[in-house]
Amino acid sequence: MFDPTLHHLIANTIRGLAMDAVQKAESGHPGMPMGMADAAVVLWTQFLKHNPADPTWPDRDRFVLSAGHGSLLLYSLLYLTGYDLTLEDIHNFRQWHSKTPGHPENFLTPGVETTTGPLGQGISNAVGMAIAERWLAAQFNRPGFDIINHHTYVIASDGDLMEGVSHEVSALAGHLGLGKLIVLYDDNHITIDGSTELSFSEDVLARYEAYHWHTQRVDGHNPAAVATALRAAVNETERPSLIACRTHIGYGSPHKQDTAKAHGEPLGQDEVRLTKERLGWPVEPPFYVPPEVLETMRRLGAAGGDHQADWQALFTRYAEVYPELAATFQQAIQGELPAGWEAHFPTFDSKPLATRAASGAVLNAIVPHLPSLLGGSADLTGSNNTLPKGVSYLRRGDFSGRYLHFGIREHGMGGILNGLARHGGVRPYGGTFLVFSDYMRPTIRLAAMMGLPVIYVFTHDSIGLGEDGPTHQPVEHLMSLRAIPRLVVFRPADAWETAAGWRVALARRDGPTALVLTRQKLPVLAPGQVGNVTDGRVERAMRGAYVLRDENEPQAILIGTGSEVHLALAAQELLAAQSIPARVVSMPSWELFEQQPAAYRESVLPSNVTARVSIEAGVRLGWERYVGQNGISLGLERFGASAPYETLYREFGLTAEALAAAGLASLQRTRLK
Amino acid sequence: MFDPTLHHLIANTIRGLAMDAVQKAESGHPGMPMGMADAAVVLWTQFLKHNPADPTWPDRDRFVLSAGHGSLLLYSLLYLTGYDLTLEDIHNFRQWHSKTPGHPENFLTPGVETTTGPLGQGISNAVGMAIAERWLAAQFNRPGFDIINHHTYVIASDGDLMEGVSHEVSALAGHLGLGKLIVLYDDNHITIDGSTELSFSEDVLARYEAYHWHTQRVDGHNPAAVATALRAAVNETERPSLIACRTHIGYGSPHKQDTAKAHGEPLGQDEVRLTKERLGWPVEPPFYVPPEVLETMRRLGAAGGDHQADWQALFTRYAEVYPELAATFQQAIQGELPAGWEAHFPTFDSKPLATRAASGAVLNAIVPHLPSLLGGSADLTGSNNTLPKGVSYLRRGDFSGRYLHFGIREHGMGGILNGLARHGGVRPYGGTFLVFSDYMRPTIRLAAMMGLPVIYVFTHDSIGLGEDGPTHQPVEHLMSLRAIPRLVVFRPADAWETAAGWRVALARRDGPTALVLTRQKLPVLAPGQVGNVTDGRVERAMRGAYVLRDENEPQAILIGTGSEVHLALAAQELLAAQSIPARVVSMPSWELFEQQPAAYRESVLPSNVTARVSIEAGVRLGWERYVGQNGISLGLERFGASAPYETLYREFGLTAEALAAAGLASLQRTRLK
Repeated sequence: MFDPTLHHLIANTIRGLAMDAVQKAESGHPGMPMGMADAAVVLWTQFLKHNPADPTWPDRDRFVLSAGHGSLLLYSLLYLTGYDLTLEDIHNFRQWHSKTPGHPENFLTPGVETTTGPLGQGISNAVGMAIAERWLAAQFNRPGFDIINHHTYVIASDGDLMEGVSHEVSALAGHLGLGKLIVLYDDNHITIDGSTELSFSEDVLARYEAYHWHTQRVDGHNPAAVATALRAAVNETERPSLIACRTHIGYGSPHKQDTAKAHGEPLGQDEVRLTKERLGWPVEPPFYVPPEVLETMRRLGAAGGDHQADWQALFTRYAEVYPELAATFQQAIQGELPAGWEAHFPTFDSKPLATRAASGAVLNAIVPHLPSLLGGSADLTGSNNTLPKGVSYLRRGDFSGRYLHFGIREHGMGGILNGLARHGGVRPYGGTFLVFSDYMRPTIRLAAMMGLPVIYVFTHDSIGLGEDGPTHQPVEHLMSLRAIPRLVVFRPADAWETAAGWRVALARRDGPTALVLTRQKLPVLAPGQVGNVTDGRVERAMRGAYVLRDENEPQAILIGTGSEVHLALAAQELLAAQSIPARVVSMPSWELFEQQPAAYRESVLPSNVTARVSIEAGVRLGWERYVGQNGISLGLERFGASAPYETLYREFGLTAEALAAAGLASLQRTRLK
Repeated sequence: MFDPTLHHLIANTIRGLAMDAVQKAESGHPGMPMGMADAAVVLWTQFLKHNPADPTWPDRDRFVLSAGHGSLLLYSLLYLTGYDLTLEDIHNFRQWHSKTPGHPENFLTPGVETTTGPLGQGISNAVGMAIAERWLAAQFNRPGFDIINHHTYVIASDGDLMEGVSHEVSALAGHLGLGKLIVLYDDNHITIDGSTELSFSEDVLARYEAYHWHTQRVDGHNPAAVATALRAAVNETERPSLIACRTHIGYGSPHKQDTAKAHGEPLGQDEVRLTKERLGWPVEPPFYVPPEVLETMRRLGAAGGDHQADWQALFTRYAEVYPELAATFQQAIQGELPAGWEAHFPTFDSKPLATRAASGAVLNAIVPHLPSLLGGSADLTGSNNTLPKGVSYLRRGDFSGRYLHFGIREHGMGGILNGLARHGGVRPYGGTFLVFSDYMRPTIRLAAMMGLPVIYVFTHDSIGLGEDGPTHQPVEHLMSLRAIPRLVVFRPADAWETAAGWRVALARRDGPTALVLTRQKLPVLAPGQVGNVTDGRVERAMRGAYVLRDENEPQAILIGTGSEVHLALAAQELLAAQSIPARVVSMPSWELFEQQPAAYRESVLPSNVTARVSIEAGVRLGWERYVGQNGISLGLERFGASAPYETLYREFGLTAEALAAAGLASLQRTRLK
């Protein structure tokens, strides 16, 4: 049993740091760290297996602060236990270039496992981490060698549990029986608007029991009770655990405890003083850390080094007995792919093929050679072509498969993909229809912000999906995904370009890639020699845009993406018949093209050819970038309709004839000037 | 009690129509209509209060097919009961310009209450409708005059209940005690990927009980049991009801019943024949409707006319006793605002004001004069300034307020706003941070598709929110919202433009409007006389873009939106100091500007002034449209950071100095040509 006096000293240290840092920054959220300090201290002093000296230890417990606004709780614990975070950093809370931003950002702060703040995301990432743990254990553990065997702990708020995404991932966590996932629910009865009675009266524990979770309710300010509950949760190995900790937001504040006023603003100098007095805490100095607190916490942190050393010794013996497994494990953990992985890509014959089917063929070919690849779909497996041949799926009690049936849970899928990637050892991909990327958009943004190499397989990418109608036809999605910084959007024109997209996505280490694929069949163009150019189309497509077919001294450029590239090829012939030489540029990825040297970009889109037309079955917004002021963009400035797709393309004017006519019109404009 | 023989005839008629229509279209979803035909027939023949001759009757029961892929179930019932939908229309299932698209679209088909298909949306809309019903009842009903007193029925699928948004709205529905909301849950154990055992094993009823719903479980193929359960649900007035109907997808199909093969593709000619034989149904002709079925259903439909006539008589008496209330009711139902509503807008002095605060001032001023306005926030009430002074909130048992605490449920809020708007009688608005518009994006798209006049109050619109950091700072959101067809995005530069935004939003009848507002204070510019132009800025801002400040023969144009307009004004002065006359254009709304006549657009952005710079604290993508090939766009091509906002603007180069320098550079480009 941990010393109660010391416990309270540590908890009050955190309360003091939270009050003072928010006060100094003149913004922030003091109430949550003050309320959850007790439970968090129990977790971090008596349960959490971690090593502040090495935040990358693969078998560490994962701790996710889903209620990211309480960032000072985490920063305090990181500092106290000895991560690379100083008291000075806490002084600089929420300042430019500090390691203590308003909400935890894993890419800034050692020991922060994932970027949280948007509610519901942390708990979703944690479910992904817990899945990763079970999956790696199934792959790599051997009798006597539990190389991977850790818990995933979460602190979640009312807000996390109100958000729909937490329903999705919690239901799946219960379904899969993630027994090593433990959630401490900060049950403080307060949201920003006031009492939870305004909008939140569900029986949370009963809901989680309905998901097949193990649930407990404790006084979150009773360290012994929290410890007992955590121990019970650890002992429960078949079900994930939810521990509702009844806490008091702004604990100790005479005028603001248990009110929304404690949530998201400084308590005020006077109230800080009164609170410290009530807690029996020195009013001065601010940011006070009693020496015995620091000493205790640092000692506990250092003990994590011993744990890791034990693990390292185990791993060394493992590597002797299972050298290949150990090598594979280390490669996976480092996020690397086996040398020569590109060689396993399939080839394609000239039979028409939907790019989603080409993507499926790529997966079939490469999955056996990429052991860290773990994929799934939000219940559109057959449509997304995401299930590789011969692969089985993860289920309760058996995590040896390589496929996740996410259920009809796009948002949850996105959060889990992020968690799988953040855990390490896993290269995750997930599929849904492109139109439903909207459902998971908050997670795509966070993958981009964190620089996670998540791969999205977005099929049914336009009105080309046909009869399902406008609710299922993306129109604005390509451009709105392109608007997300650091996301690479790749819309291939045929099977070979699809392979290029997968090459790009797998090679990326620093951000997510969205593969945007057709439902309908497309011609498969020749893979290599095109016109007088001899390099392969796969490599050229990987540059984002390239000259697909050219004529001598082209007078106009036709730019297309995806399925519309074939309309551009047909339009080129129509223009040729009128003696107008035109160039066809296939542009699967804006982002990749913009990373090319200026000379390459100029070679593809020479500035002196200003007669240009783009065609893409989506909104035109943004295409001015490439077509310029004489240019014309063909697109779709309305929602689609339910009909066979050939009809839709015709009725919406996305035809080779319209494209050729636009080429002429653009040429006309250049001549008028 | 309804005749069982007739019941089965009707249900099998629906099964036959579903099989035949999908077979003819060669695409669609036969399994769900076949599985839910029994329960739906019970609902439509014994419970539903509606009048096929007038689908706009305000007090009709609302029926929402949340499982929209089962559209043929709804089309069959609409046709059979006598809505303006023919058997010929069902023959044309999923064809160009037909009234029977793949998923139900309310704007195409009389009797379809809302557009469904994306899972979770229908049930969310239904919660909005049920709230609208209670709210209108609280406002307008008087003793003896239950002008509004109807149920909202839903058919929902496994997919609806897996989606997070259904958690959000169901929790709120339970919290509010929406006793007249009744959900039939099609518990068929099958999703697209196969058995629900792959991913879905929660105890749905226990979960709904945790939300304080009334729950029942019945055999969905036993009409008497379904009727009994519906009766119990109707009799339960304090809690919403969920009735889990155990059904068999593709009911009757010898080889496909209870399999995913019945879900989303034609059964095949042979299987259709075998199924009809097993059901004891004539194999020929296809689309067979027994005369007694049509006769019965039409008679039931016609009886709805009598119900409406009774209601009309009641309303006539009501109008005699409460003429003002009746007039207000009719105006609200017709979606009209009281004459002269614009006159109640506030004025502003020159004291700096965040546009979110200006928006709050507008609400305070107009809400007393706009009785149909019902607003709320996803737990950011104080931040969004969405709660008008003196207004109380809706709660269990008391719906007389005018404010909804949605809880931390952005997606649910979006779905409920759509439902409120689709119900009629309500002009809904809802607030959250702009960055969280991502969470509700699927609902914004549907509001746009349906043309619903929903108003979004999106505050904290840029890095201007400061210390909360990149997870809370929108960067790509403005442009990605602009990409949605029919959504008007309005980002005002000051208090007066904020009033203009509200004027636009309230005047709109045909689509949603997003007001994009600052956290930080902004100068309030003079309201009227600007330069040599005498009309008011409110009216000019309503045109989407206008000349805010001009010089004689401007050589450059500085275009800004929102808070960045003030940087443009400062840059203009910097340029003037270098003897370069520049024009400042404030462009709160691209969509409104693009609706202006060409001459107006030319007057604001004259083609001969090609030195142009835009500034907006978001991605540059798309700005090429207005700055042209000599232009430069200042923006933010990365995620933000946690720091005071003044620091962020400076560090990210969004300053008057940078803007003036860009103006010079653009001018330079024009001179090089």
